[in-house]
Amino acid sequence: MTEYYKDTLANGLRVVTVEMAHLHSAEMLCYVGVGGRHETATTAGVSHFLEHMLFRGTADFASSLELERAFEAIGGAVNASTDSETTCFHSRLHPDCLSEGAALFASMLLRPRLCDLEVEKRIILEEAQEDYNEHGIEINPDNLTGRLLWPGHPLSQPTIGTRASIAGLDEVALRRHFATYFTPANTVIVVAGRVERAAVVAAVSAAFAGWVGELPPLSPVFSPPPEGAVPELVWVKDSDSQVTLQLAFRVPGREEGSNLPLRVLRRILSGGGAARLMLRLREQLGLTYNVEANLSLFADSGCLAVDLAVAPDNLLPA
Amino acid sequence: MTEYYKDTLANGLRVVTVEMAHLHSAEMLCYVGVGGRHETATTAGVSHFLEHMLFRGTADFASSLELERAFEAIGGAVNASTDSETTCFHSRLHPDCLSEGAALFASMLLRPRLCDLEVEKRIILEEAQEDYNEHGIEINPDNLTGRLLWPGHPLSQPTIGTRASIAGLDEVALRRHFATYFTPANTVIVVAGRVERAAVVAAVSAAFAGWVGELPPLSPVFSPPPEGAVPELVWVKDSDSQVTLQLAFRVPGREEGSNLPLRVLRRILSGGGAARLMLRLREQLGLTYNVEANLSLFADSGCLAVDLAVAPDNLLPA
Repeated sequence: MTEYYKDTLANGLRVVTVEMAHLHSAEMLCYVGVGGRHETATTAGVSHFLEHMLFRGTADFASSLELERAFEAIGGAVNASTDSETTCFHSRLHPDCLSEGAALFASMLLRPRLCDLEVEKRIILEEAQEDYNEHGIEINPDNLTGRLLWPGHPLSQPTIGTRASIAGLDEVALRRHFATYFTPANTVIVVAGRVERAAVVAAVSAAFAGWVGELPPLSPVFSPPPEGAVPELVWVKDSDSQVTLQLAFRVPGREEGSNLPLRVLRRILSGGGAARLMLRLREQLGLTYNVEANLSLFADSGCLAVDLAVAPDNLLPA
Repeated sequence: MTEYYKDTLANGLRVVTVEMAHLHSAEMLCYVGVGGRHETATTAGVSHFLEHMLFRGTADFASSLELERAFEAIGGAVNASTDSETTCFHSRLHPDCLSEGAALFASMLLRPRLCDLEVEKRIILEEAQEDYNEHGIEINPDNLTGRLLWPGHPLSQPTIGTRASIAGLDEVALRRHFATYFTPANTVIVVAGRVERAAVVAAVSAAFAGWVGELPPLSPVFSPPPEGAVPELVWVKDSDSQVTLQLAFRVPGREEGSNLPLRVLRRILSGGGAARLMLRLREQLGLTYNVEANLSLFADSGCLAVDLAVAPDNLLPA
């Protein structure tokens, strides 16, 4: 197992260091405990929107271009992603530039300008197009089954939001979400690579020690589905040469007991040509080019999904 | 720069070793000099088909399952890919299992059974579906512009072949292609990771030294397009929420002078938010979520392509 160190600053910010002396570079990642499940139907997509907005300039860097260039100057390439429970900002950087890297992330996380909102909204609406077909109908299987697995719960909403909710987001909503969740005690910074623990803690402290903020409110209480929930099917007509099929099973979450059996089951089903799904549907029956199983685990719920794409004629045999 | 060693066995097989003592594992890759450009309109897709067939069992392993399990037993996960000029079989493996790994690849490359051809054909036809829409019309931009860039030349054909050529391939065509191109002098084996040159050469020699075969015929002479070729446009109606646009420029190949200016141009256009395409079309104008430039270089030709996906309303401004 790889060793790691965990330090906590006085303001609650956690710093994790993974010393990997054999590497030539380092990676810095800032995880904020905010994502799709901290949203309502009205604010769906605000966490992901905020993720984008933190790239649009800060008090120290007037534009996304200045920010990107500052990262490039220390060997970095900054990027980010948002899921149901976390938002992660990350970049590679030269190990000699830990202080500069921490200062850049602090500028994004503590002092974003949150401007050019309408330009960024257009970009996100383009990103959201990928989940819809030419008739404006949602075709992303994860989003479709999510609504059946967690009806009425924030986990049923796509992380990117709906086109209506994205269009309705404004600066007030973004600033409220930012003030609530972008706090030191709700953030973990991880640095891995050719770095030493003391230098990492010093660099992060210098950039982040002045950050103040309360703990965010706890996640909304998760309401389990009614007893005796029955299997459900959703069918969406879409134009493509293949039919996309997803079988989604609701499973216990990370904090609801051991996930090891689920991980073993996922691996037995999918992962290499000797796993069951590929072996049977592809190698033996020749019905598909690709079939796989994926496991998504949240704190208190999860989903095991089997995804398959086949020509219409092969759907029934598969 | 990473150091490497190159050794050549008596039969012409080249062995490249990259010693990376700080790693815990190794990667073994077998490159065979065969791909789409070694095919005719009738045999289009035969190199890729062969790549698939080498997984369907060998003289030593009766089925793909036995082969996959043998790789898994030495820490491996075998996979492969085919492009215009090469076919590559590769797997991670435990550094203590070099001999076993080389023996497994030798079994695939020297002694494939080439059976279950009709099952594999169905799998490949499913794979090829991804390039067509529900009306059977080709929608892969790379394939569409390829026909304009290299008219009548094998480079204009999709590596996977056409549905007609795939359907027409039989055991005779596969065996002829196999006998012609799967030869030691047409193959390079690369091993990188926690390995030593002497051990790599010994393991590869033990498994491959008995391999005999002639050099394959030289690639078909490449005919340049007529002078004064004019810009051309291909437009395919397709159902989707976004319009996909590709601007493709024919450029000199790897062996036609320095590619450094092309690589610099590609990097100026694309690669991070500070590169021109993303900066202008996304950050400043908010017209797209993703735009990128890609450079494909073959021995004697190449293509610099800009790919863009936008909602129909944003196409003209973009």
